[in-house]
Order: sequence, then C-alpha cells, then structure tokens
Amino acid sequence: MNKTIINRLLVNRNNNHLFKRTYSSVGNKIPRDPKYAVINSKDIDYFRSILKDPNQILTDKDDVDPFNCDWMKKFKGNSQLVVKPKTTEQVSKILSYCNEKKIAVVPQGGNTGLVGGSVPVHDEIILSLANMSKVESFDPITGVVTVQAGCILENIENYLVPLGYTVPIDLGAKGSCQIGGNASTNAGGIRLLRYGSLHGSILGVEAVLADGTVLDCLSTLRKDNTGYDLKQLFIGSEGTLGVITKLSFITPPKPTSVNVALFSCHSFDRVQQVLIRAKKQLGDILSAFEFMDRPCIDLVLKHQAGTREPFDDSTPFYVLMETSGFNEVHDGEKLSSFLESIMGDELIVDGSVATDSKNMTSFWKLRETITESLGKEGATYKYDLSLPIDQFYQLVAVMREKLDGKALVYGFGHVGDGNLHLNISTPNQSYSKDMLDMIEPFVYEYTSKHRGSISAEHGIGAMKSQHLHFSKSDPAIHLMKSIKHAMDPNNILNPYKVLPQ
Amino acid sequence: MNKTIINRLLVNRNNNHLFKRTYSSVGNKIPRDPKYAVINSKDIDYFRSILKDPNQILTDKDDVDPFNCDWMKKFKGNSQLVVKPKTTEQVSKILSYCNEKKIAVVPQGGNTGLVGGSVPVHDEIILSLANMSKVESFDPITGVVTVQAGCILENIENYLVPLGYTVPIDLGAKGSCQIGGNASTNAGGIRLLRYGSLHGSILGVEAVLADGTVLDCLSTLRKDNTGYDLKQLFIGSEGTLGVITKLSFITPPKPTSVNVALFSCHSFDRVQQVLIRAKKQLGDILSAFEFMDRPCIDLVLKHQAGTREPFDDSTPFYVLMETSGFNEVHDGEKLSSFLESIMGDELIVDGSVATDSKNMTSFWKLRETITESLGKEGATYKYDLSLPIDQFYQLVAVMREKLDGKALVYGFGHVGDGNLHLNISTPNQSYSKDMLDMIEPFVYEYTSKHRGSISAEHGIGAMKSQHLHFSKSDPAIHLMKSIKHAMDPNNILNPYKVLPQ
Repeated sequence: MNKTIINRLLVNRNNNHLFKRTYSSVGNKIPRDPKYAVINSKDIDYFRSILKDPNQILTDKDDVDPFNCDWMKKFKGNSQLVVKPKTTEQVSKILSYCNEKKIAVVPQGGNTGLVGGSVPVHDEIILSLANMSKVESFDPITGVVTVQAGCILENIENYLVPLGYTVPIDLGAKGSCQIGGNASTNAGGIRLLRYGSLHGSILGVEAVLADGTVLDCLSTLRKDNTGYDLKQLFIGSEGTLGVITKLSFITPPKPTSVNVALFSCHSFDRVQQVLIRAKKQLGDILSAFEFMDRPCIDLVLKHQAGTREPFDDSTPFYVLMETSGFNEVHDGEKLSSFLESIMGDELIVDGSVATDSKNMTSFWKLRETITESLGKEGATYKYDLSLPIDQFYQLVAVMREKLDGKALVYGFGHVGDGNLHLNISTPNQSYSKDMLDMIEPFVYEYTSKHRGSISAEHGIGAMKSQHLHFSKSDPAIHLMKSIKHAMDPNNILNPYKVLPQ
Repeated sequence: MNKTIINRLLVNRNNNHLFKRTYSSVGNKIPRDPKYAVINSKDIDYFRSILKDPNQILTDKDDVDPFNCDWMKKFKGNSQLVVKPKTTEQVSKILSYCNEKKIAVVPQGGNTGLVGGSVPVHDEIILSLANMSKVESFDPITGVVTVQAGCILENIENYLVPLGYTVPIDLGAKGSCQIGGNASTNAGGIRLLRYGSLHGSILGVEAVLADGTVLDCLSTLRKDNTGYDLKQLFIGSEGTLGVITKLSFITPPKPTSVNVALFSCHSFDRVQQVLIRAKKQLGDILSAFEFMDRPCIDLVLKHQAGTREPFDDSTPFYVLMETSGFNEVHDGEKLSSFLESIMGDELIVDGSVATDSKNMTSFWKLRETITESLGKEGATYKYDLSLPIDQFYQLVAVMREKLDGKALVYGFGHVGDGNLHLNISTPNQSYSKDMLDMIEPFVYEYTSKHRGSISAEHGIGAMKSQHLHFSKSDPAIHLMKSIKHAMDPNNILNPYKVLPQ
C-alpha cells in the first residue's frame, strides 16, 4: 500500500457510510484497566518541560484524532495526548515518567498496521516516532545501514538506491510505514522469499525499556555471539517490551535485472508445481511468487481503471512471479528455460512476461490493488494466515461453502511463503457482529487444527490478542507473560495488545 | 573440523605433553556454588527408573570422562553422571527432577565447541542429546526439515542432498557437531555469507525448560507473527535457558554448479576491494569469502602432507572464494568477468580457479587445516572476533608488535562476515598464565574500543563469561540476567556459563 493509495483510502473513508461501524466496535473491547493513571495538566507540563518544542506535544482533539485511529478506521482509541520525541533521551525521559506515574503508552510508527496494534484501545498516551527519521550511517563495504526508528521505509530505499543497495523488505505501505514499526511487527512483505525475515536481516537495535533504561544493542556486526540475542525480543513484540529508537540492518546489493511474469493455472495443485520448479530452476533470482484467485482478478478489473483481462481464457488461479538478478542475459535465459519447462508439462494455461516497466507495473497492479479494491466494496473481514501448503487454498473453499453466498470470499497472498490473505467481503454493508460470529472463531480453529498461524505477518495487536491460544500453547503464552512481566512489570507499554488478558 | 580431523586430534592429544596444562587450569575457574546438590545413589536410581535402557546412563569414570572434557582438552569438568535420553518426555522428567533437587545440568551435543560451553565446570550432570538423532520429516515443497536435536549436521546433509536440498550451515566440525548444539550456540561457519544466520533459518524449536515444561514452538511455517518469537531465546543462549530437543529449519535447494578460486594480494586493503567487487559482480552466487595471512599458509605447508605453495610469489594475504549457483555456464561467465575486473585493476597479484573437485579440495585444505596445523605447534590462544572492516586486520599487527616474538600471531577467517580468527601460538609450550596475561584482557579491550564482538561465532561458554562486559552494556547484561532468572530461577541449566557471576 503506497502513500497515494493510503491517501486515496483516507479520502474514501471520510465519505463512506460503510465505515461508520468499526470492526473494534462489533468485536469485544477489553475494558480499561483502572490501575492506569488518567493524565492531568501536571503531566502535560512535565512533558512540555522535557520536549521543549511546542510542536512535539499535541493535545487538541483535532490534532490528536488522526493518531487515535488506524488508516482503515477499523480501530479507534481515545487518547488525549501525543508526544513526538526527537531523541532517544527524550523517549527515555517520557517512559521513565510514565512508568513512575503508571501512565499507559502506545508507541506509534507510520500507523499502517492491520490489527490495531499502533492505536490506543482507551486513553493511552501516544508516543509517535515520526520526529526520529534520520539515516545515521551507511557502510558501503558491508552494506550495513543504521537508521532512527521513525525513518519511512521508502525514504531509506531512496537513500540506498543511488549507492547500489536496497532494503531487504518491501511492503505496499512503504510510502508511510516506518522502519521501527516494520521491526516491531516483524513485517513480512514480498521480498521475504528472497531476503528472509527481519530476524535475520536486523543486526542491531537500540530500544528504550519501560522504565526508561536505554538498551544499546545497536551492533553493526554481521556476527556477534555474546550472550542472549536481546534484539530479537523487540522484533515482532509490537512495542510491548520496549520502544525501538534505532536499528541497523544488512542491505543487499540492488539487483540490476528484473523480470515479471504472469501465469494462469487450472488448479491450485499446479500453482504449487510451478512454485517447486521455480525454486529449483530459477534458484536465487526468484524474488516474488504471489498468487490470486479469479474473484480477486474480477474485483480488480471492476475497480481499477486501466486494468484489463490478462489472458483470453479465464482460469481459477493466477501467479505473479518476479526474478531479480545481476545479469540480464543470464536471467533471461534462466527464465526462458523455466517457461519452456512449465509450458511443456502443461502446468500453466497461459503466461506472459513483462518486457518493459509499464507492463511490469500493470502486472503488479493486478496483485497490489486487491486490498484497495476490497475497500471499495464494503466491510472486509481480513485474515492473514500461514497454512501448510496442502491446506493452503482449501480454507477458501471451506469458507465459501460455510458462508453460502452471504459474503464473497477472496484468496490471495505470498504462496512462496505459505502466507494466505483470506478476505471476506460484504458489499455495501458495514461491519456486523453476526457476520463476524460466522467467521470467528471458526477460521482460527481451522487454522489451529492444521498447525497454521493465525497471523502470518500482520501481528496480533488488539484484534487477535484473545485468539493467541489458537497458534500458541499455554506454556508458550505463560512464558511470554513471564518475559513481559520481567521487562515491564507495570504493564505500561502497549497494554491490551498481543497477550491475552 | 570433520570427524577424521577430530579423531586425529584426539589421538594427538593423548600422546602430547603440550596438553598437560589446560587453558581452564591457567585461567581463573569459578568456584563451585554450594547451593547445588551433590548427586547420590537415590538420584541415580531415579534416573534409571525413567530411562529404562541401562546404556542410557553412564556412571563409570572411564565412560564419563570423555564427556567431561572438550575435544581440544582445554576445558575439563568433574561430572560423575551422563544421562542419554531418547525422547523429549525423558528430557522433561530429568530436568523436572533436577530442578526440584537443585542438581546442576550441562546439556551436551557433539561437544565440538571452542569455549568450554558443553562440558561441566564442576560436577554438573551431563545431559547428552546423542540418542535423539532422527530426521523426523521433510517437506519437498517448502524445503522445511524437522529433526531431533542430536542429529549430526553431516547426517542431515547426507539425508537432504539426494532430495536436491542442502543445510544452510556448514562447519569444519560437521562430522561430529549436532544440530541442537549448532542452534544453541548460533553456529556461524562458511555458509553464513550466503544463507544468513540461524536466527533467520530456524523456523521452529521444541525446548524443555528448566522445570521440565515442554515448550512446543516447533512450527514449520515460514511466517508466524503470533506473539513473542520465543524460539529466538534458545538460539545462541548455549543451553542456559532450556534444552532444545527438536527443531525445524528452511533448507535451500542444493547448488549444482560450484567454483572455487584462490587469490593472492599485496595488502589487506586490496582484500577488501576484492570483496566489494565480488558482492556487486557475483551477487547471489558468492557463497564463501575467506582470507588467510601468509603465516597461516606457511603453517599449513609445514604440517599438511600434499599441500604446496599456491603461487610463484609469496604475498602477505590470500583469499579463498567460492561461488555456488544453478547454471554452470552462467556462473563461469560471471566469474570470468569478475576475474578480468580484479586483475585488470591489479587488485590481486595472482589467482587460480579450481577446475575439478581435486583442486577445489586442495584449495579448501589451505583454509580448513589451519586449526589442525596450529594444534600441532603447541598451545594456541584462540580468539574469534568481529571487528569493523577498517580495524579487521589491524589487531593482528598490533598483537605481533605487542608480543614481540614471544609468540606467533596468525590471522584468518570469514572476512565476508567481518569475522577474524586471531590465533596466538606458542610452539612447544603448554598454556601459561604469563602468556595469557599478555593477551587478555588487552585483546578484549581493543575489540570493545572498536565496538567489535569478543565472540563472533564461538559463543561465551565458560571461557568468556567474565568478559561479557567487553561486548555488552550493563543494562544488556542486567536484562539477560532477568530473563535467565524468569526462566530458570534455580539456575540449574549450564551454570557458570555465558553470564558473569
């Protein structure tokens, strides 16, 4: 989701009756914990004294409101205060004070999440990292970059590209999301297939703990086996264990040769066969392997100007594949030989390779505008699941049968990573408790039964904290709680999120 | 270090007066903590009752002794008991009992570590994972393998190769080391450059906690953002937070085209330039970039039969580079064009590409037999450091000047990962406190001053626990201790290791 798309959605939602009832209003909201202090004017005076610049504190309702709500307007909090520190020291002073006074805090990056993790549930104060947006250093020998947490992902990419490097993650939200949020949520995206997860790419983290302690694990070393790898705790814990203020990560050399291909397939089984061949025959140049079912294509064709039917015949499944390498001739030859192989064995019905950037963009548009197109239809119930490959698409069929026409079911996602985006759309309707009850907890139970993950890449946030047990055992949740208690005994950091109450 | 080499060293050490004084005997050994119980016959009876098979319990001194000592005979403990469970349930019962009775436990894999992490410091009982050595499952679509912790690394490789896959780590010790130990120590090795660290490759871990709780985080999913990523805690914590019993990890398709090249260089600066070009021009096929200084070459030529001077002229630096890909023609073309580039700009003095597997092996022998050759010289003080690239080789020069001929200084390692193996050899001498005092803490202080790591890949173990502060801040060590306390309040798991007392 790039900035333009988000901005378009922001315009849409303001004019759209569909969003009057939020997802969080139809779900069960956890009540406010009375142990937290309600902020008063003395607190605000204190924050003013440490932040100096008046622009670093927002207290007017109109100023605070955009921070209270996620970009989809699915989740809405009631905070009265946004603080926007510029330095790690200021973050430290804010948290130290909040810990002492038992003031709950929600850290917020680009606020592009999908599970309500970055907005308050009640009146938590909002700690925005937007003012910490510097690229601090880059080493052209090792390719290691060090950045402040508030750097927007696309800005880091724009910084690196002229130097011949690229960021190892890429998301639709790159124009708005911040790298600290990417790390805190262990964001996935389309490059995970190629460059692996952030648990491998991130080399160092500076984080501020709940009591204000600055934890400097900001290594730029590729290898460092000295004690527990503490930085891992902050990757994917959604701001509940500390606030990431800086991080360093490996950036790979930017590929100089890119190809995009689109295929149509008769069955999901053949999609899998194409994937196996791609991994074997294309090896390291395979950089994306995304799939969409036919309803997704129909939806995009309906809502997106300039898109057109990709092939003569309609088929149930489509694959968008990308290769990225460093030698145009070699990559072209590998791709040709791969295409011959899958066409010769009739694994695909039709296929097309983009020959210029305009065509590449139009292929990617079929995949990248699905979410936006769903937004134009009505309330969408979004599930981001990992499932074993043999169960991967089965759930879409099961949901279609179960919902029996009461809603439309769409399946797409990062099939190369086993990550299905299951989207259930109710055109021209707002979120409804009845529909939610038809979907949940069934979809989680199904996923759990097949040892899948109820959140592949979106995280838990406020949306799924009560469902965590579907993917994690009691001893695992117990251990998570022990760690949370050891690191944030007053539970001031991002309360009501991630862990079940 | 493969099995043959280890076996050869085992023979050597038994006949070698050099090893009479151990490294641990000249360092400062931490006294036994009296809070731990001394095991008695009732304890042994209990273990017999749960383990059933008499071969699963060793109590004879001759049987236990090999488990008390590391393969280099640098570290020696005084355990009276080895237990060798066959199932996770047995591990759970053992730990539950030990936790209740305050019996200290050292988990042991292949016992190939270099920092005394897998042998007892005093009389801890030894929990060997050797009987848990099954490959449990492999998914040919995703390439995910699930194994018991006691699987020997080379056995997993031998299982995978016929299926077209390979393990993402490779170590000299592959013939003896166990995958559970690799995970517990976050082992690095020569493939890290290509496939990244185990924090990225490992997908799931089953571990038994100190109180016997079985923690099932044995996911085989590529993506799973549901709560804290607990498995990361066990990767690199050297058995102090739990005993890994099973794990799953991604295996990449096995490259079908491999090239090995050897270069000589006038300066370390040119080694760096060659590395930068290799990363840019070879891209993803670059799979190893190792360097050795001239003294290493001289040492190997002296001790290894069948090795010979690689080039006409002797130079101060040598690089061993490997490419691995899936297309012989393409890889050959990329390599040729890279060689033209580095020769044209005179970055190397001489170079040679291995054309057959015999030559490849002889090139690798120059790098892989350095450690064994050092063992034949006398006591060696080994340091495994990460340093910023501009300081990388400087330390070798500094140590040569400081020691002023009293010892020989060798520098080699994984320059592509910033990982220097600094080896200080005192021919025909045993370990001496005077020599140790000339090296330490200086070498750690130097590394710390340049924000390096005092243990790039070998870990902390018993050897460096008192030196952890050179690489980690007080708040970081404090947090590690909090986590240790939360997870193992009786401190029964691998005591005296990793964390400073």
